[in-house]
Amino acid sequence: MSTVADFTERDLIARIQARLPPAPEWIAVGIGDDAAVVEPERNRLEVLTVDALVEGIHFDRRFTPPHAIGHRALAVNLSDLAAMGAAPRLALLSLALPPALRCDDFDAMLTGLAVLAARYRVHIAGGNLTRSPGPLMIDITIIGSVKRRHVLTRRGARQGDHVYVSGSIGAALAGRLILEANTAAVDCCTERYLFPDPRMRLGLLLGRNRAATACMDLSDGLSDGVRHIAEASGVGMTIDADALPIDAAAREQLAASGGDPVLAALTGGDDYELLFTVRPRHLGRLKTVNRHSNVPITRVGVCTSDPAVLLRRTVNGTVEHTPMPWGYSHFG
Amino acid sequence: MSTVADFTERDLIARIQARLPPAPEWIAVGIGDDAAVVEPERNRLEVLTVDALVEGIHFDRRFTPPHAIGHRALAVNLSDLAAMGAAPRLALLSLALPPALRCDDFDAMLTGLAVLAARYRVHIAGGNLTRSPGPLMIDITIIGSVKRRHVLTRRGARQGDHVYVSGSIGAALAGRLILEANTAAVDCCTERYLFPDPRMRLGLLLGRNRAATACMDLSDGLSDGVRHIAEASGVGMTIDADALPIDAAAREQLAASGGDPVLAALTGGDDYELLFTVRPRHLGRLKTVNRHSNVPITRVGVCTSDPAVLLRRTVNGTVEHTPMPWGYSHFG
Repeated sequence: MSTVADFTERDLIARIQARLPPAPEWIAVGIGDDAAVVEPERNRLEVLTVDALVEGIHFDRRFTPPHAIGHRALAVNLSDLAAMGAAPRLALLSLALPPALRCDDFDAMLTGLAVLAARYRVHIAGGNLTRSPGPLMIDITIIGSVKRRHVLTRRGARQGDHVYVSGSIGAALAGRLILEANTAAVDCCTERYLFPDPRMRLGLLLGRNRAATACMDLSDGLSDGVRHIAEASGVGMTIDADALPIDAAAREQLAASGGDPVLAALTGGDDYELLFTVRPRHLGRLKTVNRHSNVPITRVGVCTSDPAVLLRRTVNGTVEHTPMPWGYSHFG
Repeated sequence: MSTVADFTERDLIARIQARLPPAPEWIAVGIGDDAAVVEPERNRLEVLTVDALVEGIHFDRRFTPPHAIGHRALAVNLSDLAAMGAAPRLALLSLALPPALRCDDFDAMLTGLAVLAARYRVHIAGGNLTRSPGPLMIDITIIGSVKRRHVLTRRGARQGDHVYVSGSIGAALAGRLILEANTAAVDCCTERYLFPDPRMRLGLLLGRNRAATACMDLSDGLSDGVRHIAEASGVGMTIDADALPIDAAAREQLAASGGDPVLAALTGGDDYELLFTVRPRHLGRLKTVNRHSNVPITRVGVCTSDPAVLLRRTVNGTVEHTPMPWGYSHFG
């Protein structure tokens, strides 16, 4: 069984290129020079972000097949662009490969990435390959574009704005828990974990229709997201636990894992949904977005002048307000 | 002694920001949102590249101090822009940090990077932080700009063009060998290895004066570089071993290490010099470049119609032509 160590860097680049479509005409110099040269889009701002997936931190190769690794590495970046209202354009791919990585796994990883790139018309314009003495790492820089007046940030929420979330939360965490117990399991939750679908269309529509006052993606969980928007916007938030969109399958799995399924769904990461705020008087704009979007949205709370970020929950018929639980933390 | 594991991601981002100058006005959204938003430069093409430094592959922490790691990580990227004739503009910084990394080492690494960024006016517009279960990794995406008619590529060399190299070669390899024997050594070669100075001014001048027909940087050694330009341009090359600019100190160290110092200098990486080709009738343009540049250049060979890449060397008074030795290879 051949590994990447059996090939030269040039061979591996050729294997990557074989999976990519021809370069569009706005790429003046593509893969194979010291750098890529591209023509910027007219009358657009550029939106840039980088994200890394590290083996042992962001994925476990025992239950994450190579094409899911490639898919997820690009999806998490696309999700960041969606959160800014931007359309993706190109990406740079930096790979650190353990020499023992099997060639067919390398190929499958690139195929997973290339299929998602083709779906959202992201062109891989360049990158870097190196050996890793430890974990497999995929670092992707993605660049998109947006009109100035359509940029979504975390900063624009105001008191009285409604808080919405796309799709559903908790399914990715449930999927990961299922895979940790049974690496071969396949169901709706494991699919959500392995193949997150970035909310590109919703993000674009929210920006173009100027429907949202603030937006971000939920890579680190809804509890983390509401804190970020609240702090960046200088408001508080009250989130209604009973309104949270948690799929029955996810709820069941999270309960079976022994915790409170609502708290688990709030603090579990990897949802890659969009969290956003909407002025009550812009509800018409939101309806327009909703008509053209391909994902449901749910109102889950409201922005408050008091800076506290609270969870409102009905317990035994009594409404309780508690501080939002803390979610995922990368360090410490 | 505190480590990065004692801090949250937010704390570490604040430590990075404390080392950076305020964002220029063309950055619409900087660090702290899902992505950075920037205004493209008018009438310029964008030049983009990514490079990773991986502990155990590209640096050894026993003899590479943290501020040199930060410096080198940015320098290798700047060097790629120089090779395209581009001026740097912004960078994205993706770090994978072992939890045991000391905070003062983290700070020193960022300071080394920030000092070089300030020198060449590169703004750090965003990035990503994650834990690493293994090596320290720094992945930098850098974006610059260049006028369309000033782009340098590897593809334009023609038969009869002269081949030039900037500065000197072999010193970085000599420096690494010295440090491997004595981790505390300090001399001109160790400085060249630890703190490479990217040839930004020379690259810009070569592009603006349209003096070079092809150009690349020597990250993987001159023997690798000449092969790349020859192949991309569809020419051969003959390099004159006796003309190669190898400093006396480097030559002495490379000889002391037991090998042929010329072959070692040709195949040793990390020089970060520019290798470029010039039409004989554009010698006037090259003189203009030379007057305004801050680094010497040396003519080392010629492009040939025969596709072979040869080393011309005088041995015992006899001129010999041998195939160019193979240099550094990342995989295998």
